[in-house]
Amino acid sequence: MAQLFYAADLFGVAVFAITGALMAGRKSMDLFGVLVIAIITALGGGTLRDVILGNHPVSWIRDDTYILVASIAAVGTVVWVRLTQPIHEKGLLIADAFGLAVFTVYGTEVALQHELQLSTAVIMGVITGVAGGVMRDIICNEIPLIFKKEIYATACIAGALVFIALRALATPPWLDTGVAMLTVLATRLAAIRWHFSLPRFHLLDRD
Amino acid sequence: MAQLFYAADLFGVAVFAITGALMAGRKSMDLFGVLVIAIITALGGGTLRDVILGNHPVSWIRDDTYILVASIAAVGTVVWVRLTQPIHEKGLLIADAFGLAVFTVYGTEVALQHELQLSTAVIMGVITGVAGGVMRDIICNEIPLIFKKEIYATACIAGALVFIALRALATPPWLDTGVAMLTVLATRLAAIRWHFSLPRFHLLDRD
Amino acid sequence: MAQLFYAADLFGVAVFAITGALMAGRKSMDLFGVLVIAIITALGGGTLRDVILGNHPVSWIRDDTYILVASIAAVGTVVWVRLTQPIHEKGLLIADAFGLAVFTVYGTEVALQHELQLSTAVIMGVITGVAGGVMRDIICNEIPLIFKKEIYATACIAGALVFIALRALATPPWLDTGVAMLTVLATRLAAIRWHFSLPRFHLLDRD
Repeated sequence: MAQLFYAADLFGVAVFAITGALMAGRKSMDLFGVLVIAIITALGGGTLRDVILGNHPVSWIRDDTYILVASIAAVGTVVWVRLTQPIHEKGLLIADAFGLAVFTVYGTEVALQHELQLSTAVIMGVITGVAGGVMRDIICNEIPLIFKKEIYATACIAGALVFIALRALATPPWLDTGVAMLTVLATRLAAIRWHFSLPRFHLLDRD
Repeated sequence: MAQLFYAADLFGVAVFAITGALMAGRKSMDLFGVLVIAIITALGGGTLRDVILGNHPVSWIRDDTYILVASIAAVGTVVWVRLTQPIHEKGLLIADAFGLAVFTVYGTEVALQHELQLSTAVIMGVITGVAGGVMRDIICNEIPLIFKKEIYATACIAGALVFIALRALATPPWLDTGVAMLTVLATRLAAIRWHFSLPRFHLLDRD
Repeated sequence: MAQLFYAADLFGVAVFAITGALMAGRKSMDLFGVLVIAIITALGGGTLRDVILGNHPVSWIRDDTYILVASIAAVGTVVWVRLTQPIHEKGLLIADAFGLAVFTVYGTEVALQHELQLSTAVIMGVITGVAGGVMRDIICNEIPLIFKKEIYATACIAGALVFIALRALATPPWLDTGVAMLTVLATRLAAIRWHFSLPRFHLLDRD
């Protein structure tokens, strides 16, 4: 099971690295700039989680597979785009949804392993899922995806809650992990496809 | 006295959560987005302070009252604004000043408890007071309040220095805490009211 | 040799503090705002490195010379600019290149002292060199220099690799340090002077 989680984590790293590389491409960064943004996007969320938990050394210092996977994904993205053609905006959103699903569940799992409170576990899931992408968007001077019209943070919170509930029911690991990831992914993809959104909190300025 | 500090800290959390929720409302975020921004604003400064100090576990992991208070404040803000009417821009500024006062003094106190150097204590006060709001403003793509015309960082530094001086004089805790908070609050409110500002450092570009 | 590194580190702190103060001046911040931005720029990269490494207490808490040097450099910049005249945009870029060189090599050295993997050492070099300036630019709502046309992250990576290679060859410390710093500095200055750039990764949006 540890291996399954490890593989899922590396998959999330690769996917988020791709979203970082694509965003860097939209900003016409040079090749090492692409690498830097890809690595920050892929490893920023987990690093923030581990730093807040005081969980040292962080994953990519302990094991350089993470950096390697992120770098290969970034270079692969550049090569692939060069050989084929420009990517749809939607491709970036869908890749982001996959990474979000994997990292949210992984972050929640890490917090549960530390036997933290449930509210903290949800927050660690959200941080792990969201923070890398937020760093990518802030550094690239884009409005973070978390702001866009469709459901985003909500999908993470839902996935973390589903994971915690199934874990409490002692379902097999493949089941709780799989269902929770699907919850995030399906929620987010449906939100992108049909422009689902929660009620918004509009506040007009009056001075 | 520990309880008084705890209560003041929770008050600061609630107030900063409100400023986060209001800012999220100005960006028309959805309800969970409001929650996320409110929590980051309320707990970001203290988390950054604890992470820099290596002070684990950070407050809201140790005690989930913090998350609860921030969440209630955020939801309460949304409900209250819905039931009444749009908030004045100035309301946001004044709430921010209250949070700034509480957190600056609290952060300075934590540093003194760790027996850190005085320069570090001032900086920890400023970080605790300012960082959550800066994170809120950066994520929301606003120019941080720290930039606006009126005195801001200066109010924090003044409050931290007053607190350190009174503590060195061994005044009663309610006195040093109260006077230092009033220093920050009064400085900031006066700056907002009469547009006080320090001399600025203007630098024109020449290329 | 430890003293030489210490001196170089303080030099980097002073130089980055100057770039922070200049940027704050371009934003017409007040005097304490200038101080805050100068300190973040000067100490942000090293702090992030130490926090990720779990390396507590961070340098400026252990030793308040750092804060003192950054503050003096910031105040000195304001006085110097007042007495003379506006600074060229290029002055900011060149000062930034010096700080980048010193901090990149220092960060790589710290990682090697911790006997971390080489990929991690390179990344720590880049974080130490780049992160303070990125924080300065993000807080000041500028597009980070790392984005501008000329080679930037690449200069850091080159310097870190040169340092690691020379260290592996057991050259004298003054040689590996000096050559690595010169690598970063020369690469960056040449890039500024002749507008060198790597191939870019252009990605057009199609929706």
